[in-house]
Amino acid sequence: MSESAAPRTGHAAVTDETRSVDDDFPQQVRHELTDFLAARDSEITQQGAEVREWLEHLWRFLQRGKFLRPRFAYLGWLARAEGSTAALRAAASFELLHAFALIQDDVMDESRVRRGQPTVHRALSASHADPAPSRRQRFGESAATLLADLCLVWAGQMLHTCGLPTAAVGRAYPYYDSMRQELAVGQYLDLRSTYRTDPSAADAFQIARMKSARYTVTGPLVVGASLAGAEPAVRRGLGYYGDAIGEAFQMRDDLLGLFGDPAVTGKPADGDLGRGTVTTAVTMAFERADPTQRQALRRLLDEPSTDSEHVARLRELVLDTGAAAALDAKISERVEIGTRTLHTIAMPESSRTELTAMARACTIRSQ
Amino acid sequence: MSESAAPRTGHAAVTDETRSVDDDFPQQVRHELTDFLAARDSEITQQGAEVREWLEHLWRFLQRGKFLRPRFAYLGWLARAEGSTAALRAAASFELLHAFALIQDDVMDESRVRRGQPTVHRALSASHADPAPSRRQRFGESAATLLADLCLVWAGQMLHTCGLPTAAVGRAYPYYDSMRQELAVGQYLDLRSTYRTDPSAADAFQIARMKSARYTVTGPLVVGASLAGAEPAVRRGLGYYGDAIGEAFQMRDDLLGLFGDPAVTGKPADGDLGRGTVTTAVTMAFERADPTQRQALRRLLDEPSTDSEHVARLRELVLDTGAAAALDAKISERVEIGTRTLHTIAMPESSRTELTAMARACTIRSQ
Repeated sequence: MSESAAPRTGHAAVTDETRSVDDDFPQQVRHELTDFLAARDSEITQQGAEVREWLEHLWRFLQRGKFLRPRFAYLGWLARAEGSTAALRAAASFELLHAFALIQDDVMDESRVRRGQPTVHRALSASHADPAPSRRQRFGESAATLLADLCLVWAGQMLHTCGLPTAAVGRAYPYYDSMRQELAVGQYLDLRSTYRTDPSAADAFQIARMKSARYTVTGPLVVGASLAGAEPAVRRGLGYYGDAIGEAFQMRDDLLGLFGDPAVTGKPADGDLGRGTVTTAVTMAFERADPTQRQALRRLLDEPSTDSEHVARLRELVLDTGAAAALDAKISERVEIGTRTLHTIAMPESSRTELTAMARACTIRSQ
Repeated sequence: MSESAAPRTGHAAVTDETRSVDDDFPQQVRHELTDFLAARDSEITQQGAEVREWLEHLWRFLQRGKFLRPRFAYLGWLARAEGSTAALRAAASFELLHAFALIQDDVMDESRVRRGQPTVHRALSASHADPAPSRRQRFGESAATLLADLCLVWAGQMLHTCGLPTAAVGRAYPYYDSMRQELAVGQYLDLRSTYRTDPSAADAFQIARMKSARYTVTGPLVVGASLAGAEPAVRRGLGYYGDAIGEAFQMRDDLLGLFGDPAVTGKPADGDLGRGTVTTAVTMAFERADPTQRQALRRLLDEPSTDSEHVARLRELVLDTGAAAALDAKISERVEIGTRTLHTIAMPESSRTELTAMARACTIRSQ
């Protein structure tokens, strides 16, 4: 990282103003998504009203996003280049990738609520006329899975047709491919862990890193920076920051899944519990539990339930073992490490400021 | 098509020998797939034995493919350029795309057998230790869906890293994207049709075209030809051939699903029937049925079953209404139209010969 202060060559001098994410960033992302999807819509909806209805479930879902991944992708770009509509479009594509992951994940977990609304597969089930509940459910799950497929395909298409030169996209694609691979493998490991009786914190952190941290922070950041032609040292530095903040983000998400306010998270507080997901919070509790607490934890995990007494008991154990406090400390530590790294990366001061703010914003308690 | 006889410029003269698909084409495709997957394997299996076991389900599945789509893709390439390992690799990527479609389709249809073996999701369920059958089933379905995701991502990666110039890949990608979009939309329409009581033959043909014909023949052919830089007239001509042969292929597949020998098709003869799929065969029967036959058909479709009496009755109706004979005639007509088109396309005689042979091979009765 010795070149941290080296001037970037081959780029026009830029002022900090063109390097900032605008306040109306969500609006800009929405605009790009709407544009891209309107073009797809016009190709597809000649297939009739039922296809249009199906796609409307996606439109509605996308409206309610927080656009965290597009923001990190665009910040990756801004670390190395001036603001650009093409780059914004590339960044917005990450919201489609995220939609793919969430819609499919909710099918697998049989989740009921997401972003404060019925999950996409449940909404699709409800819109279906079949009188048999089991067939309605199956239809909803399959229709949602196919919608997720479209999101995965469209995310890649939106990225490589964003308007940046082919060479720029070519530079970024290896990181994009490896991030998508890691996402699927991480999801699989997560699935396995749900059915396992002896969860280790090391496993839980590894899964959190693969299924969530990388594609939330590191992947978007590094893809954005690669599109802009960032040097290896900048990519590595952003990767280091991204992994630290991504892990902190996932730990916070696990804690919010247990203690958070559903009105804020948009998910029921008992979501992970109902499906026996082995989160970082639960494994930390395991590692810190005395024999009696461990036995109690095992009993609770062996019979996943969203029963309020069950949930209350698990919360109590995560608090009493000191797991919640330990996670809080870990989160602060990761945020500290991540933001400190920023000072070793050659980037405009405005990028450093915004990435520091983002690190805090996506890991705070009340998120 | 007026430039059908125009000499292709900018390409070295090639002999017919370098323009043929070798007899060991399946072996070559397997080799490319193995190479590509070994590289992914080494990235992934550091995650442990459970990831390796998961991927082995895919290895085994791919071994048993017929590589029809890679063959069409490579023939598309050969219509315009000499044999090339990079192009072969691009062609082989279509088998990963096909694996994605089949593995996911089998989950949605709850199919039990594919390629003469338990479907991937069933094999994954069986390998899972959870004592509760419903959780084993859910695990198998989710693990298979994630494996299908990997196939979709890897197919694209294998295509764009095949070794051909970026410009060549860039030319082909719009066709690739639109084919994948059509596949997902076609699958969705198919899903809807399963639950519909008034199937029309026009709908069934449209669905067959979208979910199967295009990505089996037209898509691979046109992507292959675009990689090689085929002129619009060649692409259009191949597209015309592809749509005709793809439809014939799907009609034959529907007939084989009803009357075929499971030992040859690798699928149980009653697969479509058990899930009430509205195939071209069934809708043709509907359109040709007298009122009594129509009533009998509706009863059979309203209660999907693989009961042998049910299956026998449906077969009888498809035969008695003349639907089977009419489909046979339609298949011959499409093959005739498709192969005739080949004579209007500027391509080497060897390509014409092989595409003619392929048109017959993939639509014959004993397939």
